[in-house]
Amino acid sequence: MDYESCAKLLLTHEDILILTHMNPDGDTASCAAALCSALRRGGRRAYVFPNPQMGRKLRPYCEKYYAPADFKAKYVVSVDVADEKLFCLGYDGKVDLCIDHHPSNTHFAEKSFIQDEKAACAQIVMGIILSMNADLTQEEATVLYIGLSTDTGCFQYNNTDAEAFEAAAELMRCGADNLSVNTVFFRKVSSARLKLESMIYDTMRFYLGGRIAVATVTQDMIRKTGAVEDDLDDLAGLAGRSEKSLVNITIREKENGACRVSVRSFPGINSSDICKVFGGGGHAAAAGCTIEGTPEHVRNLLVGVVEEVWK
Amino acid sequence: MDYESCAKLLLTHEDILILTHMNPDGDTASCAAALCSALRRGGRRAYVFPNPQMGRKLRPYCEKYYAPADFKAKYVVSVDVADEKLFCLGYDGKVDLCIDHHPSNTHFAEKSFIQDEKAACAQIVMGIILSMNADLTQEEATVLYIGLSTDTGCFQYNNTDAEAFEAAAELMRCGADNLSVNTVFFRKVSSARLKLESMIYDTMRFYLGGRIAVATVTQDMIRKTGAVEDDLDDLAGLAGRSEKSLVNITIREKENGACRVSVRSFPGINSSDICKVFGGGGHAAAAGCTIEGTPEHVRNLLVGVVEEVWK
Repeated sequence: MDYESCAKLLLTHEDILILTHMNPDGDTASCAAALCSALRRGGRRAYVFPNPQMGRKLRPYCEKYYAPADFKAKYVVSVDVADEKLFCLGYDGKVDLCIDHHPSNTHFAEKSFIQDEKAACAQIVMGIILSMNADLTQEEATVLYIGLSTDTGCFQYNNTDAEAFEAAAELMRCGADNLSVNTVFFRKVSSARLKLESMIYDTMRFYLGGRIAVATVTQDMIRKTGAVEDDLDDLAGLAGRSEKSLVNITIREKENGACRVSVRSFPGINSSDICKVFGGGGHAAAAGCTIEGTPEHVRNLLVGVVEEVWK
Repeated sequence: MDYESCAKLLLTHEDILILTHMNPDGDTASCAAALCSALRRGGRRAYVFPNPQMGRKLRPYCEKYYAPADFKAKYVVSVDVADEKLFCLGYDGKVDLCIDHHPSNTHFAEKSFIQDEKAACAQIVMGIILSMNADLTQEEATVLYIGLSTDTGCFQYNNTDAEAFEAAAELMRCGADNLSVNTVFFRKVSSARLKLESMIYDTMRFYLGGRIAVATVTQDMIRKTGAVEDDLDDLAGLAGRSEKSLVNITIREKENGACRVSVRSFPGINSSDICKVFGGGGHAAAAGCTIEGTPEHVRNLLVGVVEEVWK
């Protein structure tokens, strides 16, 4: 399938429902909102399946497209969803067309349009909309810019390639309001988050001459700062800012006496190997696990394992 | 002048000296290194005038091109230099060709090639090199990526447009090592800097329901964290992270009992008007001034003035 055939296929259908994934990120939300807008411009009745987990920042872009309770869908399209297990909470039906960029996509849908070399699914949806309507509205461009910029860490992650920059250029030409997106998604944080970062940097520990950096977020820190779930996004990135660190560990104390651990590492150290020791897993560069015990206990266990791996 | 004529002009000369600006940033440094490399590939003897202020991160890219003491230049080219007053310390000669992107350029050179709509001078140098050699080496692409990404705040500043993204795409196609650039220039900071940020966030003050955010950096904080000059880059951006703030003030205590103040504001509040009250100046969105007194005293003065402006 290519952009044109996917656009044609979509326009042969009516009463289209668009499905996002569980724990929705900027990419799935922006793909849903932009595709819904474009389908309506193409004369189709289309809605987005209401995602109960949609965050404060993304909700304004998607909510207006949410399907009313009595909407009867005749064709279901998922965007940025890699697996049936990841369907938006509350949806348990079938999917007719899956539009995705995840290499791990399980081909759960009747038909799939997957481009797994793309940094963001927003690039695929952009291509489909341009085939469908020959243009993007300013609102579609702005919302797709959210997907592209958040999935590439504002053009800093490893997945940022020439194609991602070309897509950004195209979205800018279509009038994407990149400044408001940058302000909301990359620049501004709550004062609770600033206080929390202050505590995290202040309590950060270093081992092996700084090659291991460990950041800890305790329930007490969350209480003292008044941080809410939104304020806890991307905490795993903070430890990695320390200059010499090659392995960055973030320990987040949960209410049940266990700790959620995320490990990020530079090539040469396999994060997944470290997390497997504790029954977790992931990728070589980023992995996670859950460990019983206090943050101090968990930190000592982890540092011991990393030092072993280095031997 | 266009890229082709500028490239031709450069190649008609021999013994070329490239001049950067005072307090060199990533753009002037990357333009000098890339242009010098390309001129040498074009068969020309070319050197960069040694800039005594070149910072730790940029030095490795430029130093190798520095002119030996006995080099006699026959043709001098300045890159990203807006004014004679900004010549690299130690240079007081004339300039034959000025390549720049600053609207404020004073046309001090014999000839000028200025494209003041470009976000970074690196985009102009990229165009010249592509006309000169029909390609960029991976090293030239990487160094120009430094100029482009630092001058656009990693594609977040207002000057980031479609052309800037297109230039980034071109540099990526030429093999720019964006990951190492991101790591050094945007990701990693010293542990002293992390400690300093911790203190800054911890001591940040808010006024008018958070619309004014004030960050303070005292000599004591610098001493306690062991921060050096490199660790004090871009501190003015930190206050602006607070969600509700529209005016962001950073007060840096100097050794002489005065404070250096930088003000950043969103449209509607003029930073320059605020700084003019204290004999400073700048632009509507970013301005600065120096005020005698302790940080507390200076903070109270400034907040009073901003509250007045808001009345």
